[in-house]
Amino acid sequence: MTEFFVSRWVEQPEHVRVSDEPERLPKGFRAGAAAAGIKPKGLDLGVIVSDAPDTTSAAKFTRSGVLAAPVQVTMERTRLDAIREVVANSGNANAATGRPGLDEAARMQGATAMVAAVPETQVAVCSTGVIGVQLDGQVTTKGLLKVRPELREDGAVEFADAIRTTDTIDKHVALDVDLPGGTVRLTAQAKGAGMIQPNFATMLCFVQTDAQLAPETCDLLLGVTVKRSFDRISVDGQLSTNDTAILMASGASGVVVEPESEDELRFGEALDALMRQLALLMVKDGEGARRTGRVVVRGGSGDGVERVAREIANSPLVKTAIYGGDPNWGRIAQAIGAALPGTHPLAYDIRVEGTLVCSGGYATREQANFETDEVEIEVAVPGDGFETEVFFSDLGHEYITINADYTT
Amino acid sequence: MTEFFVSRWVEQPEHVRVSDEPERLPKGFRAGAAAAGIKPKGLDLGVIVSDAPDTTSAAKFTRSGVLAAPVQVTMERTRLDAIREVVANSGNANAATGRPGLDEAARMQGATAMVAAVPETQVAVCSTGVIGVQLDGQVTTKGLLKVRPELREDGAVEFADAIRTTDTIDKHVALDVDLPGGTVRLTAQAKGAGMIQPNFATMLCFVQTDAQLAPETCDLLLGVTVKRSFDRISVDGQLSTNDTAILMASGASGVVVEPESEDELRFGEALDALMRQLALLMVKDGEGARRTGRVVVRGGSGDGVERVAREIANSPLVKTAIYGGDPNWGRIAQAIGAALPGTHPLAYDIRVEGTLVCSGGYATREQANFETDEVEIEVAVPGDGFETEVFFSDLGHEYITINADYTT
Repeated sequence: MTEFFVSRWVEQPEHVRVSDEPERLPKGFRAGAAAAGIKPKGLDLGVIVSDAPDTTSAAKFTRSGVLAAPVQVTMERTRLDAIREVVANSGNANAATGRPGLDEAARMQGATAMVAAVPETQVAVCSTGVIGVQLDGQVTTKGLLKVRPELREDGAVEFADAIRTTDTIDKHVALDVDLPGGTVRLTAQAKGAGMIQPNFATMLCFVQTDAQLAPETCDLLLGVTVKRSFDRISVDGQLSTNDTAILMASGASGVVVEPESEDELRFGEALDALMRQLALLMVKDGEGARRTGRVVVRGGSGDGVERVAREIANSPLVKTAIYGGDPNWGRIAQAIGAALPGTHPLAYDIRVEGTLVCSGGYATREQANFETDEVEIEVAVPGDGFETEVFFSDLGHEYITINADYTT
Repeated sequence: MTEFFVSRWVEQPEHVRVSDEPERLPKGFRAGAAAAGIKPKGLDLGVIVSDAPDTTSAAKFTRSGVLAAPVQVTMERTRLDAIREVVANSGNANAATGRPGLDEAARMQGATAMVAAVPETQVAVCSTGVIGVQLDGQVTTKGLLKVRPELREDGAVEFADAIRTTDTIDKHVALDVDLPGGTVRLTAQAKGAGMIQPNFATMLCFVQTDAQLAPETCDLLLGVTVKRSFDRISVDGQLSTNDTAILMASGASGVVVEPESEDELRFGEALDALMRQLALLMVKDGEGARRTGRVVVRGGSGDGVERVAREIANSPLVKTAIYGGDPNWGRIAQAIGAALPGTHPLAYDIRVEGTLVCSGGYATREQANFETDEVEIEVAVPGDGFETEVFFSDLGHEYITINADYTT
């Protein structure tokens, strides 16, 4: 885990060190996990708790019109600016489960509150797994009793393992961040290998720090960094019913991060690098992925550049070309045209790894190279002033195998 | 070819007979093809001509913002209501080829006009194939000289073969249509196995009849039937730069189809069934497809039902589930939520092959069946008054093989 910032697209800030103790949480936090039996085997239920009563927090959720029960319960019944405890299970999404599903999510919230004597309204509930199957409240309640004695200051990796499903790459890290006011710790545990996955669905990300942050600062920093990380990735263009990202700050280091201070700037840079690298790990770990793409689009309309970037990132023809290392950039031209219907004649440029292959909508005689591990595509459409990026997986045989050959 | 109406989703009208002479064109038409050398081997250049000077027509094109040169030339320089001759090549899309590409498309138009002594402004030009490679005008001009002596009244199948690329299913047919005013012939040649394809791209469809139609009737009927056929399918959610559909009516049967007559109604029914079945053949022939899906969405917003239908039809998770015969309808719920962000709580129903698997957003205990050759999915979202359908391919290993393992 000392190798964390592995992508050329994310710079490790100078004041950020990757800890060689990934299991150790920031001051004030404990975490643990158990094999509750929601999945056939392995850890499937985890809890993180802050013992600091003044813990602050922020949370962001999926924008899907179909929300899983735990997302509904957390949005409606939890003080999102003062989350002290998080419970998460894998193996069942508790989505499309109606009234009984809501009851089970609420029961899980109550049982988790008792585990660490935290008020119910300060417990966030998260689930990931198959949609449309009822979650058995007996199983989760018994599982929570097993988690209780496991809660430890060095429980971060076990918690991360409990939320991991088809992930093949570790998505947890501990960072030490040097701020002008002192050193704070920043840990994170995430899961996700598809925006939604076959047996086990969803992207989840939990971040803890012992810096002291106002709730408004938590919300601001989480909002900005989610927009630059998890909002900018696509494995398969799918949107989960359960996506959740939660930032908790215990304040136990005594280092105060004031709004608009140098501390906040530095802390934000660390959080931003952390989130972007975690998001890139999800893309890199996209089901069956061989290569990772980054598309950067510039042009005169915010909506236009966004549509072009998404159309390219989600094009099965572009994705398969990258998987196959096939320099067929004509598929990128196709995606641009599809994203901007009725705009003919459209003067667009396409660069692949810096090489201009199409200029003003007209093929140059340069070859594209799709054979690097990370493939960078730059597109310019008419106009100036807007730019966006999307990171994406390629599309290969393993995606089909994972998603088609599974039987419920 | 006497077996043409093979889908349960398209009814063969009683007054329509499938001819056992698929090669024979309607009166007034001749067609032919040649191996011009645009593709490494095989027929790759075809011409259809009507010898009737009063031939009427209509044409519909891709809505992509990136238009191939032949589409531009046809849209700008051809009398779309009086097309008498069509030339089509496979092996090169003549797209993203700039000014030289436009010149070659115009040269192809001129050379084709000379082949049958038809005015240049009555020649439509179509291309399908790889994007971003210049088309060699010498090759097409020489090829057209070879096509000229091949033009025959029974040349329909050869023409169809010349535009065929990765297609594995024949997409041509000859119908005899009994109208109150007499019997007319209706023939069609189409190609397409992806909205855009790897080596050879695009959907093309050419329809001929010896009925006598006003140009306005041609346009009306083609417009309505394209909306109900080629606008309602998706192999991979991709939009070609070259899509073209052309209807030509020679009038040589002497049977006049007047606007708002019983003849028009019957002719329209025949054209509708023809186009829908051709569209379904494209979906069935979608690269690597095993099963065909139809999603029908009902609800209170036209935009909403369209978005839900497209999200489901283009979801790689739904497509892989159908490919694998995996009854994981939770992926449909996921697609509904993604299509309608911010609408929680959303009461939606999902039926698979008539079985209600999700009611009011809540799993019933019924199993979905994704193992039929044609899988029917019905979705209801809140409200009434709007309904749409999309036909789509599943997504399997062969799609990856075809699209990733090709090298330019």
